Amino acid sequence: MVELKKESSNRVSTGTLTKYSFASGSLGGLTTQLNVFLPSTASSSSPAPILFYLAGLTCNEDTGAQKGGFLNTAGKEGIAMIFPDTSPRGAGVEGEDDDWQLGTGAGFYLNATADKWKKHYNMYDLIIKEIPAVLKEAGLALDWSKVSIMGHSMGGHGALSLYLKNTGIFKSASAFAPACNPSRTPWGTNAFTHYLEARTRSSPPSEWLEYDSTHLLAASTAPKGSLHLLVDVGTEDKFYKEKQLEPESLKQAAKERGSDEELEVRMQDGFDHSYYFISTFAPEHVEYHAKYLKA
Amino acid sequence: MVELKKESSNRVSTGTLTKYSFASGSLGGLTTQLNVFLPSTASSSSPAPILFYLAGLTCNEDTGAQKGGFLNTAGKEGIAMIFPDTSPRGAGVEGEDDDWQLGTGAGFYLNATADKWKKHYNMYDLIIKEIPAVLKEAGLALDWSKVSIMGHSMGGHGALSLYLKNTGIFKSASAFAPACNPSRTPWGTNAFTHYLEARTRSSPPSEWLEYDSTHLLAASTAPKGSLHLLVDVGTEDKFYKEKQLEPESLKQAAKERGSDEELEVRMQDGFDHSYYFISTFAPEHVEYHAKYLKA
Repeated sequence: MVELKKESSNRVSTGTLTKYSFASGSLGGLTTQLNVFLPSTASSSSPAPILFYLAGLTCNEDTGAQKGGFLNTAGKEGIAMIFPDTSPRGAGVEGEDDDWQLGTGAGFYLNATADKWKKHYNMYDLIIKEIPAVLKEAGLALDWSKVSIMGHSMGGHGALSLYLKNTGIFKSASAFAPACNPSRTPWGTNAFTHYLEARTRSSPPSEWLEYDSTHLLAASTAPKGSLHLLVDVGTEDKFYKEKQLEPESLKQAAKERGSDEELEVRMQDGFDHSYYFISTFAPEHVEYHAKYLKA
Repeated sequence: MVELKKESSNRVSTGTLTKYSFASGSLGGLTTQLNVFLPSTASSSSPAPILFYLAGLTCNEDTGAQKGGFLNTAGKEGIAMIFPDTSPRGAGVEGEDDDWQLGTGAGFYLNATADKWKKHYNMYDLIIKEIPAVLKEAGLALDWSKVSIMGHSMGGHGALSLYLKNTGIFKSASAFAPACNPSRTPWGTNAFTHYLEARTRSSPPSEWLEYDSTHLLAASTAPKGSLHLLVDVGTEDKFYKEKQLEPESLKQAAKERGSDEELEVRMQDGFDHSYYFISTFAPEHVEYHAKYLKA
């Protein structure tokens, strides 16, 4: 049994945000922290639906909780939120603290397969398997049959790709300024080159496509019309201009799949990549997920 | 003419948050920064009413803008917001960076009179006189006939005391966990001892009472019923428990003045001193001021 340690607790909105830590098997035994918001309406007889928020490069489990502006709407809707960290901490991999786009703060929500990284860098398993198992075991009043996911930037990539790989787990996904096509864009190709052992010689390697939302959407076998995806991107986002995000590729994938109504991409005039952008549309994203979580 | 320099700009809510800097006469020529939120409805023919937010110890002009959760409501109401810094930066006063309760990040919204501090530590003049003058000169679409003020902790002290000393300027004041009686509580007495030259031998010195909201409210000559004050304090606020805040003293002062309906003090069950507390009640505070700013 994993020991879930309570690090701190704050009353907020209609409930409580608690920071927990535990020694993670997925992360090679390293301690990971996460924040869990539980509305006061949640109880063992009436557990709350769950909305994950995955943060972006250089962020941690506090960023979305403190700056995102999600909790008042989540509280009003009676939705719990889970804010994981963005990478292992203190893995001791050579060079992990040298580049903000790789290593600490940059786990990319995948399971590493390259020798150097594979012991610790398994954020995919942490979020899909271990956090749910640990929180279930702890008996938190969470309804694991009603789960959705959202994220920002690298975490937007995480939200979209985890959803598309696990449509049986998640009801809906949304993202702010996500990296939609990381197998072809700079952050993603850099991360995948390091984290993933590519056994194939295709370009991009098939191992990369497993974490590429554009590919995952085009190739999805989910029944047509069953997916629920919302994406917001600011027109003044410098990373959009640098072609890190590529929401057009995701739209094209939806079109190829033959069901563009499953994906709404909204270009938000004048907004940038910051939490000022996120906090502006945060209530709308929570309401979007509420539709599916409370259906 | 003071040069108002634009440091950055972010679209947020229904408008834009701009960070400005200028060389401040009040602060002995040091450069100060502030954030200004202007809703898109503001124009020279229809300038926006103004709500100041004064942050607490260790904070700066970004803290309230990023973590406060004010801007969506302000934007909806068409209200501008001004977020000043909490002290001069880089004054070079001996010891100003040694104690989080004094010096940098701890200007206490007063004009220093002690020799060591008086050249730079004049946050009162900065906010009451210089920021309005500089922003007027720059032609921002702000309506200086409609101004209210709020703040947190040390900034709650600032909001209440600046309001009570300037009821001709401000329409209303509100505060989260304010230091209500700083002439008798540890943060305040420490700051006042250093910043203010006490010529009188009374205890507390009369110079201190000029910045003590409890004293200012009890002694106010404003017409009965004309004041508008809202205060929220969390029951689990450790600084409340340590008697740094003393909202009961402020309530007593309102009672002595004979018009308790001018002040609402709400004890918020289970909340602490953090921005999780502030962001929960931020929309209510903005709506409170909107009543008076848009009357």
